Amino acid sequence: MENNKSLIAYQGVQGAFGELAALKFFKCKPENLFACDSFENVFKMVADKEVKNGVVPIENSLAGSIYKNFDLLMKYDLRICGEIQLRISHNLIAFQGVKTNQIKKVYSHIQGLNQCEMFLDKHPKIERLPYFNTAGSVKHIKENDLKDSAAIASKEAAALYDMKILKRNIEDNPQNFTRFLILSASSDIPANADKTSIVFSLPEDPGSLFKSLSVFALRDIGISKIESRPLHGSPWQYYFYLDFEGSMTKKKSWNAINHLKEFAKYLKILGSYPDGLK
Amino acid sequence: MENNKSLIAYQGVQGAFGELAALKFFKCKPENLFACDSFENVFKMVADKEVKNGVVPIENSLAGSIYKNFDLLMKYDLRICGEIQLRISHNLIAFQGVKTNQIKKVYSHIQGLNQCEMFLDKHPKIERLPYFNTAGSVKHIKENDLKDSAAIASKEAAALYDMKILKRNIEDNPQNFTRFLILSASSDIPANADKTSIVFSLPEDPGSLFKSLSVFALRDIGISKIESRPLHGSPWQYYFYLDFEGSMTKKKSWNAINHLKEFAKYLKILGSYPDGLK
Repeated sequence: MENNKSLIAYQGVQGAFGELAALKFFKCKPENLFACDSFENVFKMVADKEVKNGVVPIENSLAGSIYKNFDLLMKYDLRICGEIQLRISHNLIAFQGVKTNQIKKVYSHIQGLNQCEMFLDKHPKIERLPYFNTAGSVKHIKENDLKDSAAIASKEAAALYDMKILKRNIEDNPQNFTRFLILSASSDIPANADKTSIVFSLPEDPGSLFKSLSVFALRDIGISKIESRPLHGSPWQYYFYLDFEGSMTKKKSWNAINHLKEFAKYLKILGSYPDGLK
Repeated sequence: MENNKSLIAYQGVQGAFGELAALKFFKCKPENLFACDSFENVFKMVADKEVKNGVVPIENSLAGSIYKNFDLLMKYDLRICGEIQLRISHNLIAFQGVKTNQIKKVYSHIQGLNQCEMFLDKHPKIERLPYFNTAGSVKHIKENDLKDSAAIASKEAAALYDMKILKRNIEDNPQNFTRFLILSASSDIPANADKTSIVFSLPEDPGSLFKSLSVFALRDIGISKIESRPLHGSPWQYYFYLDFEGSMTKKKSWNAINHLKEFAKYLKILGSYPDGLK
């Protein structure tokens, strides 16, 4: 695998949304990608410079954040160098000839099941079984010849494993997007970066969250996202993940960060990159 | 079931942490409780006044929030009238005579698996299988005679289903607590309430989150928790769930809420109740 160093890692199997996001962002071919069996292995391979970049989902506009990847951003010393949003359309996929009323079990990633909750609620007799990946669940029912089961995944996954789409677009809402982050081991900031992600923790003072947002508001810096994650070993205290407008190449961003450092207990800059949600 | 109206509903089967939380909060007996098969059914039964109260987990100090229940707080018109924290200790549970190195699969609620991630990472050959409930996973391996499997659950669940604890306290960190909310259909505020939960959404203006926190900070009202959840149909916009110090029986709390209403797009008071985390 001597050429791996130029590849892009994603989690899942061929046909996974992570693969589609990588192909869209890098405008590359499937042979330029490397499939990992876990999100952590994507982070590890980028950190060890075994691949050039990694692509991981961070939040979905219906089901919410992918918390595991927030925690991995903290654990590994990588930089976010880009982001892309992908329209997610889910399909009910089964063997040719199988009818919807014959289906007893449905496999998909927990986020896929959550994004199709309204459709599944209309079929209460179908048991929902979480699987490690949406496209992987299609492969699973195919390889195990599960004629009483369906999978929820992309139309690309149905085509790849030569399975039939029983029902298209079963997601709860057509405004279903997943935001993917592009990871790099290099701390170079892309020239057109206009968004920065950070993670920080605060003293127990109940007014400290307000103070932390004021360092941005006082400088007219907009905040596009805030997310809290538990601080292990300190019940009901949190880390905050925050995205703000501006790049760390700008003086104003550094002034805000230095102001936040005056009272934050911990602060890490996760990266500056071009806003991919506009 | 004419006497149900005085019962307390929880999700899961006997031995579930929800049952232990209800017993601790209400200082009652198992016969005063009613087991539901889903969180949504707990909310439904309380809303329909088929039971007196409901008990649902809302966040864990290691694994984070139980997002489904945040969404259900929004969907149903109930009030939070109390909260309690429960120390969560997980155990690896299997049939008598089964050894750890014979175990190929481990079943538990996804939160149970997440809270024991460090232990499970040391046993990479054991497949992790999400199950609907921790105690239910013990019942599942017992009833299906799964000798190659283990469950992760409470010591009470092991005793109840007469199974053996292979390893005690396998959670990642001893500071493992789950916070449970007590739900009621009545809008009466408990006399000793000193904490209020609300949910709101904001205009797209990137400074609006700062403004929303300022209505509390300007009145010296502490914020103990903020959580964001996606707003369906509006990608990358959020609802915010916020807990603040004080009861809605106080003028100061109403002043802050009325100030927030001046610019919030949506606001709902979820309830005032005695702080159970002190």
